[in-house]
Parts: sequence; structure tokens; C-alpha cells
Amino acid sequence: MSVLIVGSTALDSIKTPSAENPRLLGGSASHAAVAASFFSPVNLVGVVGEDFPPRYIQLYKRHKIDLQGLQILPGKTFHWSGEYEINMNNRRTLLTELGVFETFTPTLPASYQAAPFVLLANIAPGLQHHVLNQMRKPRFVVADTMDLWLNIALQDLLKLIPRLDGFVLNDSEAHQLTQEDNIFAALKKIHKLGPKYVIIKKGSHGSILSGPKGFFICPAYPLHKVVDPTGAGDAFVGALMGHLATSKGPVDKNIRRAMIYGSVVASFCCEGFGLTRTTKITRALIEKRVKGLEALTRF
Amino acid sequence: MSVLIVGSTALDSIKTPSAENPRLLGGSASHAAVAASFFSPVNLVGVVGEDFPPRYIQLYKRHKIDLQGLQILPGKTFHWSGEYEINMNNRRTLLTELGVFETFTPTLPASYQAAPFVLLANIAPGLQHHVLNQMRKPRFVVADTMDLWLNIALQDLLKLIPRLDGFVLNDSEAHQLTQEDNIFAALKKIHKLGPKYVIIKKGSHGSILSGPKGFFICPAYPLHKVVDPTGAGDAFVGALMGHLATSKGPVDKNIRRAMIYGSVVASFCCEGFGLTRTTKITRALIEKRVKGLEALTRF
Repeated sequence: MSVLIVGSTALDSIKTPSAENPRLLGGSASHAAVAASFFSPVNLVGVVGEDFPPRYIQLYKRHKIDLQGLQILPGKTFHWSGEYEINMNNRRTLLTELGVFETFTPTLPASYQAAPFVLLANIAPGLQHHVLNQMRKPRFVVADTMDLWLNIALQDLLKLIPRLDGFVLNDSEAHQLTQEDNIFAALKKIHKLGPKYVIIKKGSHGSILSGPKGFFICPAYPLHKVVDPTGAGDAFVGALMGHLATSKGPVDKNIRRAMIYGSVVASFCCEGFGLTRTTKITRALIEKRVKGLEALTRF
Repeated sequence: MSVLIVGSTALDSIKTPSAENPRLLGGSASHAAVAASFFSPVNLVGVVGEDFPPRYIQLYKRHKIDLQGLQILPGKTFHWSGEYEINMNNRRTLLTELGVFETFTPTLPASYQAAPFVLLANIAPGLQHHVLNQMRKPRFVVADTMDLWLNIALQDLLKLIPRLDGFVLNDSEAHQLTQEDNIFAALKKIHKLGPKYVIIKKGSHGSILSGPKGFFICPAYPLHKVVDPTGAGDAFVGALMGHLATSKGPVDKNIRRAMIYGSVVASFCCEGFGLTRTTKITRALIEKRVKGLEALTRF
């Protein structure tokens, strides 16, 4: 089954202590779509400007991502620039140019509206609403977010959350949203807003699912070196949704394993700048790390 | 088989945002010994002053802890006082009075010297050496430490580490010791100092074992409320060693499960001030949380 993914399609200029990489393909939807594409067909919804390099269109196409929902409009592509500190944990935004995203209100292609799995990847909650409004009867809707929207569009976000089957956020966002320091107390409060499934991402410490069958503690894949963590959270949720869409049976039965696949694809994402590593992996490499995680957690 | 445990036997005065608890039974050896006692016989090595409350001696005895190696000397019991911030993660030491520990150089009772499992719980590395020197031919020696010894007794610690089968420390101590931000790169460097097994504790994010069979990612038990984390790391390594001592077969086969028991006893430790919760649990309650952790990690 296919996954519809809306989010940012951007150019990322990323500085780390060891390198500088201008105008990489980035954005939450790019990372999520490539990650999902290893498992299921993807319908991408996004917008880029006329400056968007054709090689990035080719990259999407090599991953068989459906681009009917990707608009190319006059103007500049969304451009984000950020800098990581030496430990790769602290990120500082240097520049955000929304470009064509500023006024983007897409009308979904008819062929997109029946997608059973919908991933509202990180983007303004207003745009997440707008896309969800056009979906016919999705089976499973998940949204991701970021601290920016908690700061400047909280009311939109609070209206979106009750419409979701699953909500994904990181630990500091969960604290900010609930004013709870304890992650399990925070999960309880977030469930009260509506979603049946809540996933809290903790970077190198893995992630935690809270759902009808209780908690699942999902490990991160051990990495000896993190080159660039940008997009890892998007890759996680993209692979998760792609794997869910390709699995038979109820979500409740499949979601733990789908998170493991998310964790593995996110680990590859961290091993290269932007999408450079993720676009080079194969399903066989993914399966090898999934087996690795099985071995690393059994007792 | 029995576990010899040396470490601090102290009185802890603990302030948290919600309460103040003076002169609780504390110290690394107290927490580790009570935790180990659920699984195996414990030989305790420590020293207290004449002000040590008799009810704490009774507490040790209720846990069938062998006290031949606990000296009661003229002077004051080691007294530590600390304060936790609202999120219970940041701890500030308000006062440390070494008291009788200042000049403590124990001679082990003959019956202690053949203990196959030795836990050098957190205490000055010089004292850890002194105790280890008196052991006949221990099967498995593990040491824990803290940032204080990295700061003031690093050379002693660096001489101790090669004598260990297992070394346990927390993530910030691992960074401090190796100058590596990446935890897996840090593990590699610590192995080079000698120990076959290295365990890095990450508080509520669980712990990581690196050993001959590779890594093991050990989860923390989910807690909705942490009352007082003091001693949780000591309880973790105490229960780990107690469980190892009671398990048949090679350490390599048993150590993952032993860490799970460590994680569970540490979770109980966090649910009360000092040892108040840990001393009330039963083996049945421990087994229930072990089963819980199995359910929380399977996929």
C-alpha cells in the first residue's frame, strides 16, 4: 500500500566541525520519502523553486517516488542552514528562507487522495491540516513536528493532534508540550490529546512507543561515528510508515518492527551528509542491521 | 556463590524539590549489598563510626549480609549531603565528611578472601586496590567509579582498570576518561585499558554492555515518577553481581540477564528515598519487572 508524505522539500546547507556542505537535498519530506521508498510506494507532496537542481528530481525518481504532488513554482526553494557543535548533539539554525513554501497550499492529485497511510512530516501544522483535509479515508495518519511549531503555531498543532492516529516528537518537544520532565508522565498527557500511538524520539538513546499494548523501548543502532544527524528523525518516521504500509495485519501487530526499521534507516542517515548515505543503501543492508538490533537486545 | 562488596557505608542527607531526608542509610556498598542480597550471599567490607544507628546494622542483617568485614571505629560515619534539581537529573553535593573513611585500610576476614565474585563499588581507587590485593583468586572482578576519582585519583584508577574483568561507569565519566563524545568510540578506548567487559550507565536511558559477544543494549525500567535516584547505579551493579554469582555457567552467557536484574533493582531504588523502597521489595516483585522488560523490548 502507498504512503502519502507531505513535508518540507528543501536545500540544506550544513556546517559541522569537520566540513561544510552547501545546498544538499534536504527537508523532512525528502528524508522521509527516501526512507519510506525502501518498503512501499510513496506519494510526495511538496514545493520547490525554479532553482531546485534537476539532479534532485532524478534522485526522487530513482527511488520511484511519485512526484505528481511536487510543484515547481517561480521563486526560491526553501533553504535551511545550520551548524552542529563538536558533539553533534547541539544544532544552531543559521538561516531559514521559506521561499516558495511561504504561500504553499497544495491541491492533492486525485490519485493521492486514497492513500491509506498518511505521514504529515515536519512542516507548519496549518499545512498538515490542509493536506489531511483532502484525504478520503486514510487508514493510519501520523504527524511529526518540531519545537518551532510549538513556539509559533501551538494552537494549530493542538487542533491537529486529535485528528492523528500517531504523533511523533522528540523528548525535549514532549517536555515543552506537556511541562512534564518524566517521559512516561509526558506520554500519558499526550495520549489525552487524542492519539492512540505516541512515539518519543531520543536520538542516540533510541525511541519509546506508547500504544494500546503498552510501551515499546526501541533501541538506536550503535554508530561509532555520526557524520550528520540532520533528517534522522524524518528518516525514522518515513521508514516506519513505509514498513507499516507494506506489512500485513493490524498496525498494533506491526508497529514495533516498523520502528526497528525506522531506527535502522535513521542510523544510515546519520552516516553521511544530507541524503548521501541513505540513497546508497539497499534492502539487504537494512535487513542486516535489523538482525543486528535483534542480537543487541536479546537476553 | 558469594559476592564480596567493598565501597562506602554512609549516612546520606538528601534534599529534593519536594522533601528533605536527613541521615538515611546510604553509600555505594550499602546500595550494592542490599541489591545483591536478593540473589546471593554478600560479604560486606566497610567502616562506620560510633554514630552509626543500630537500626541500619539490623537492616543489613535482615538482608543476611555478612558483616564480619564492617568495622565500627571511633569517630564519625562518612556523611554525604546532596540536593537534586526539579528534574532529578542534576545533583549538587552540599557536603562530604569522610569521617572514619579517611584512614580506612581494612584487613579482610579470612572467610572473605576466597569470594569468587568481587565488586569494588564506588570508593577511592586506592582502597579498591587494597581490597583486591587481599583476594586469593577471584573469578570475576568488577569496579564502579565516579567523576571525583577521575578528578583527584586518576593515576590510581588507571592502575586499577587493567586488573578488572569488568568496569562500570556512567556516560559522562566515560567521556571524561576517554575524551570521546561517541559512546561506542569511548567503549573501544576503555577496552584498550584492559577490561573484557565495559558497562556504561545512562540513567533513565538504560545501559550498554560491550564484551566478547559485542554490545548489549539494556533498557531502563519505565518509571512514571523518580523519587530519589541516589544509589541507583550502585543498586544496578550490586544486583548484576549478585545475579551473576547465582547463575550457572560462564559469565558471558549470563551477563546480559544479570544486567536486566540490575536495571530492575535500580528502578525500585529510584522509587523511594535512600534504601526505603529497595528494602521492601521481594524476589517476586523483581521477577515481575524482569518479565515486564522482556515484554517492553520484544519485537
